[in-house]
Parts: sequence; structure tokens; C-alpha cells
Amino acid sequence: MEHEFSQATQGLKSSAVREILKLTQGNSILSFAGGLPADELFPIEAMRQAMEHVFDQGRHCLQYGLTEGYTPLREVIAQRLSHKKIRTDVDHMLLTTGSQQVLDLLTKVYTDPGDVILVENPTYLAALQVFHTYQLRTVAVASDEDGMQLDALRESLIRHRPKLIYVIPTFSNPSGRAWSVERRQGLADLAKEFGVLVIEDDPYGDLRYSGQAQPGLLGLGRAAGATVIRLGTFSKVLAPGLRLGYIVAPRHIIAKLVQIKQATDLHTATLTQMAVYEAVKDGFLTAHLPSVCELYKKQCGYMLDAMQKQFPAEATWTVPEGGMFLWVTLPKHIDATELLARAIKQNVAFVPGAPFFAGAGDAQTNTMRLSFVTVSEEKIREGIAVLGGLINESLDSPQVRVA
Amino acid sequence: MEHEFSQATQGLKSSAVREILKLTQGNSILSFAGGLPADELFPIEAMRQAMEHVFDQGRHCLQYGLTEGYTPLREVIAQRLSHKKIRTDVDHMLLTTGSQQVLDLLTKVYTDPGDVILVENPTYLAALQVFHTYQLRTVAVASDEDGMQLDALRESLIRHRPKLIYVIPTFSNPSGRAWSVERRQGLADLAKEFGVLVIEDDPYGDLRYSGQAQPGLLGLGRAAGATVIRLGTFSKVLAPGLRLGYIVAPRHIIAKLVQIKQATDLHTATLTQMAVYEAVKDGFLTAHLPSVCELYKKQCGYMLDAMQKQFPAEATWTVPEGGMFLWVTLPKHIDATELLARAIKQNVAFVPGAPFFAGAGDAQTNTMRLSFVTVSEEKIREGIAVLGGLINESLDSPQVRVA
Repeated sequence: MEHEFSQATQGLKSSAVREILKLTQGNSILSFAGGLPADELFPIEAMRQAMEHVFDQGRHCLQYGLTEGYTPLREVIAQRLSHKKIRTDVDHMLLTTGSQQVLDLLTKVYTDPGDVILVENPTYLAALQVFHTYQLRTVAVASDEDGMQLDALRESLIRHRPKLIYVIPTFSNPSGRAWSVERRQGLADLAKEFGVLVIEDDPYGDLRYSGQAQPGLLGLGRAAGATVIRLGTFSKVLAPGLRLGYIVAPRHIIAKLVQIKQATDLHTATLTQMAVYEAVKDGFLTAHLPSVCELYKKQCGYMLDAMQKQFPAEATWTVPEGGMFLWVTLPKHIDATELLARAIKQNVAFVPGAPFFAGAGDAQTNTMRLSFVTVSEEKIREGIAVLGGLINESLDSPQVRVA
Repeated sequence: MEHEFSQATQGLKSSAVREILKLTQGNSILSFAGGLPADELFPIEAMRQAMEHVFDQGRHCLQYGLTEGYTPLREVIAQRLSHKKIRTDVDHMLLTTGSQQVLDLLTKVYTDPGDVILVENPTYLAALQVFHTYQLRTVAVASDEDGMQLDALRESLIRHRPKLIYVIPTFSNPSGRAWSVERRQGLADLAKEFGVLVIEDDPYGDLRYSGQAQPGLLGLGRAAGATVIRLGTFSKVLAPGLRLGYIVAPRHIIAKLVQIKQATDLHTATLTQMAVYEAVKDGFLTAHLPSVCELYKKQCGYMLDAMQKQFPAEATWTVPEGGMFLWVTLPKHIDATELLARAIKQNVAFVPGAPFFAGAGDAQTNTMRLSFVTVSEEKIREGIAVLGGLINESLDSPQVRVA
């Protein structure tokens, strides 16, 4: 007996990234596909000790907790944010099961089917999936290496009257780019002018390894009189398997999100929240993050160097100042999905860029996302050589393009 | 600047239970309100050791994991279910952030606004909240101590053409009742006849301390040719702060739920899944559960005894064979919410029954849910004496009833 799925979920497909990850799991494929942080830096000893301290405090680590999240951890997060000149406190914060959950909760709380959300072009694949499950119209705003183009943003605000704007202004997934100060300020001003809520997703901001930090949208928004909701996570700075994210927002928004989270999963695991608190309360991240940044900078350098040597002049790519990703643009006629099929035959994987574009019409099929963080220097050079060879083949043999 | 909430969430109120819990947190109130398991039985040493074993296995406990859940844990759950004659395997299972999350995912996957879901009368408050956030029409089916009345169920199936039927057939929250075999069989047959999906929520089934186990709906449904989706959790048998639940369902349903869970929180924390696996893999629960049942039986006995002595003959209550709750029906003119206000002044809390009824029209305002698991014998007797006194006051002084 088949029972019909809801309208919202009938057409849903599994994430291309996760399907590829499944394909590459447990075998020897050389993968630039994952969005996984490098596990060699996961602070396993610190987490082990933290967990011991948690158990030493007795059984309440196993009991139900507040939906809002473990209060001491919210305090520590507020303190950490104050170093970035973000003023907040425990009452303006909610701890969540990863920041993916915040996207789900915010969409549920603020949108009805058919509402418009503006996003960057390209943007985070799993955010697009969330918006799809709520039957939103996701509209991509023309974007370049400095962020959304402000004239295009204004036009979209006028034309589409969106409920929300979703951006990853610092070291975006997939592009690795960071917005300029001017574009940040411009977004904050336009959000104020049009009264539109902004979601600032910042999973990678702490992973800066060159250049100067830019002001966050939350602060700029406050100064401009716009409402900006800021998402953070421990996934990239500590470990993703903890599934621990947080949101900073005005109090009435937190109150509504808490009600919705009650109905969604009651609260995030007490044990992991307490363990993360014990791990980070005395400034561990301040000591730990430089080693992550140093590794990622080195890895990024290997990949940039290899691409410079192996990729044809017709290809271009971002040079990120932080984060985990490089974004490659191939000559227009090369389809990266077709390239992937050939690459996998030679045991190399990456993620084609197309799924990161909001509409099929926007999709630049000649783009790819490369993650450099989990692969050794030798393997980076080996994998980039394979990709370079395949791209050159596409340039040389026009018949391959049709395949 | 105020931004409008979605239609689905505009009218949402916080759970009455959680609001009362907040009120009673951190002070000396004697509470029969909580749905919290007794933490004195949380196996903290077993969990501590399990966690050590997890950390011994290296860093992958901190990495992203499969949306489906940690495979060895799914295997162990399948094995445990086989002892209950429930045949299943890892491909028919999904691990979730508590079984609350399954309710959210299932509702998202199967319903559109305005769809009907049939529930018991009364039923689980937090399930009603989920259905409310998806704008369902929740229709209560007349229920008694043996479960839903089958003629009323048939009538509702004909009249409302529901998408789903949601039941807690064994030691229900809030009533503590368990369905008879006949009603279980009848539900399975009707679900087959009308082609309606059944959600069998079973958080308390392992907490049986007297009487005979009844067959689960999943097995009866399979035999009858109906589709039954079974929800389980480690919250009541191990510890709720782990936020770990699971679902057993046909493969195509699991596949859809996995897609939706990806968009909701990617996956449940790797660390807690691995720790629970390490804790339970060698039969720990088989040894641990009898001590939980023994305690709950004793506690339940204290409360029943105290009520027998203190409550007036006009009050009636369930005598549960398992689970965590007693359900009290007072004389019709006594409003339990008003009673609670007076009880809190004397430092005693419980949950009024009204919010557990699907529609305001169905609400029996003269009912209350009492949890006996976390309160000492002395305090049970003390608290029941207070409540008995207040109920007697209501019987004696008609003017109080109007207050």
C-alpha cells in the first residue's frame, strides 16, 4: 500500500553531495567532494577530558534539559562573541542540533509556501534543500567576488518582496569568497529600507588564515536598524559530529523559535552541550583555532599551487582568505557533472557547482567546488593532476563535450 | 521592526507542561508534573565507560555521520526488537534526535495543511503541538481504558478521511493505559480497510511492571496488511538527555524521511549514538530494565495507596501496569487548572489534563496527570495529602469552584 507524501516533500531529491559522499565512503577514492573538516585536528583528548568532567558532575547530564540550551554554554558563547564586538547574552540565544536546524526552524517560523527568499548565487546546497521543503520561491541575486551586487539586490527586493535574505558573507560554501565591507554595509542598509529579515550564516568566519576580518552583518544591521539573525556552529571549529549550533537573535524571535524547537526535538542533547561547555569554557578555542587555520592555509596553498601548474589558462578559481573551499570556473562548454563521471573512473571526486544555484536557469554547469582540507599534499597534487588532464582533454577533443 | 511569523506558527503557544516545569525548576516545589524519568537510575557509570570506549576508537566519533544513523546501533536495535517478535533490519530504520523528531519528520512528510490526523482522547501533548505547527485538523477518537473505541474509530475514518492515525497503545502519556488485544487488532484491521497509515509511538512499552505484554501494532499491522510505523526511544529506558530515538518503517518511507532529516539537522550526534551503542551492545538493557520497572512499580504503588487514603470517593484513577503516569478524573465541576493554582501555593505541582485533549470542545477540565517516578515515598504521601485536601475543599465549598 502506497501512501501519498505531502506536496512539499513529493519532489524532494537527496543531496547530490551526500550521494557522492556515500559513493566514496569506505573505498580508496581521492575525494575533494566532502564538506568535512579535517579530523586530524579534532581535539579528541580535550573532548575526552571534558566528558569526564561532565560525568563527574552527576546524573543531570543524562536528564532532559531546557529547550533554550545549557545556560553556561550560552554564557561562554556570548563571551566569545564579545571578542568580535558582538554584544549579546543568554536570553538572545538558542542552542540547536547543528546550524542546519536553525535554517529549518527559521524557515518554519517565518515563511508560508510561495514566499520568496533571496540567496547568493551560488549558495549553500543544504540551505536550498530546506527552502525547497517549505515550498519557498528561492531567488538568486547576482553575486561576484565581493558578495551580492547591490543594484541587483535592490531590484530583487522591489520585484519579489522577499520574506528573508540568506547569506554566508564570510568564506562561503561553496565559493570560499568573503563579502567586502561596502557590500555588507549595503545589505544592512537595504534590509533596513525594505524591512526584510537577514539570516547571516557564519560557520567559517573563525577559519581566516589571511587578510583582515570584516565586520559581521549582525553589528552592521543593528547600527542600520535592520534585523539580522546570526547563525554559528561548533562544527568547523571543534567537531561536526557533536551537532551543536547556535543562533543570536532578538528576544521575541528566540521565544518563538524555542516553541517550535520544543515541537521539533524538545532540545539538543544535554551530554554534548555540557561536554562542549567543559571543553571551551577556559579559552580552549583561542588556543586551538590557530592550528586549524595554519593547516587549512597550507592545504589551500598546495591546491592553488597544483592548479596553477595543472589547470589550463581557460580555467579560473577563487583564492580564499579562509574556510574550506575553492570554487573553479571552467570554460563554458565543459559540463562539470560530465567531468565528475570521468574523474570517478580515475578515482577522483569533487562536487559539481550546478546544485549550488537556486534555479535550474541560474546554474553554471561549468563550475566545481573543491575542498582541500582532508587530503594530503601528495594526494592533492595527484588528484589535481588527474582533473587537469581531464579538463585539458575536454579542451582538446570537442567530441567529449557531447558525451 | 516586527516581522510577521508564518501562518502555521503565529498562534502557537508554549507547552503548558514546560511552562510549569520552568516554574518549578530550582526551587523546592513537590512536583508530580514532570515527564522526566527518575535520574537515580540513569546508568551513569555504564555511560561513562561507554564513552571512554568511543574515544578509544579515535576521532571519527567527532566527524559527520550518516543521516540514517550509526549502523552498529541500528543493528543492535533490530536485534532487541527481534526479542519482541518484531522482525526488522538496519535498512528499515532511522535514528533520530529523540522520537519527538520522528513526529515532526513524519508530519512534514505525510501531511499538507488541513489534513486530518486521528488521535486518542486524551493523547500526548507534545504530539498535538507538532500537528498544530503543521496546521493539521486533529480529531480525537472516543477512547476508554481499552484504547480507541472501534465504532467511533470507524466513524471517524469514514467521516474525516484522515491521513494518519497516531496512538500510544502501551502505557500512554498521559493516561497510563494500555490497549487490549482486541482493540489493537481492530485498529490494524481498520487501518488496512481504509488504507490509512498508523503511527505507533512506544516510549514506555519496556516499562511494564505487571500484567502480560500485548502484541505491538507493527506486527498486527503487517499480518493485516496495514502500514504501521513504529517509534521507539532510549529516553525512558536509558536516559532522555541523550536525545536518541528511532523509527521502524517500510524502506521507501525511511528513504523519504532520510531526505527530510538531511534538511532538518543532517544527522543526530555521532558521539551519543556511538556511546549508546557501546553501552547497550552486550545486553545491558536486559539487565538494567528490571531495576527501572521495580522502582516504578514501587513508586506507583505508593501513589495509588496514598490516593486511596486521601482522595474522595468521587475521584477515580487509572491503575497502570507500566509506564510513568496516573490519570485522575475528578468530579465534573472541579477544574484541575484552578486546582493547580491552589496546589502551587502549597508547593505541589501536577499537570492539568485539559491540554492533552485535541480540541477545546473535547477537553475534560476535571482531569489531571500525575507522575510518580521522581518523587520519594514520603513526598508522594505528603503531596497527595495536599491534593486530597484541596479536592475535598472543592467538594465542600461550592464557592471555590467559581474562582
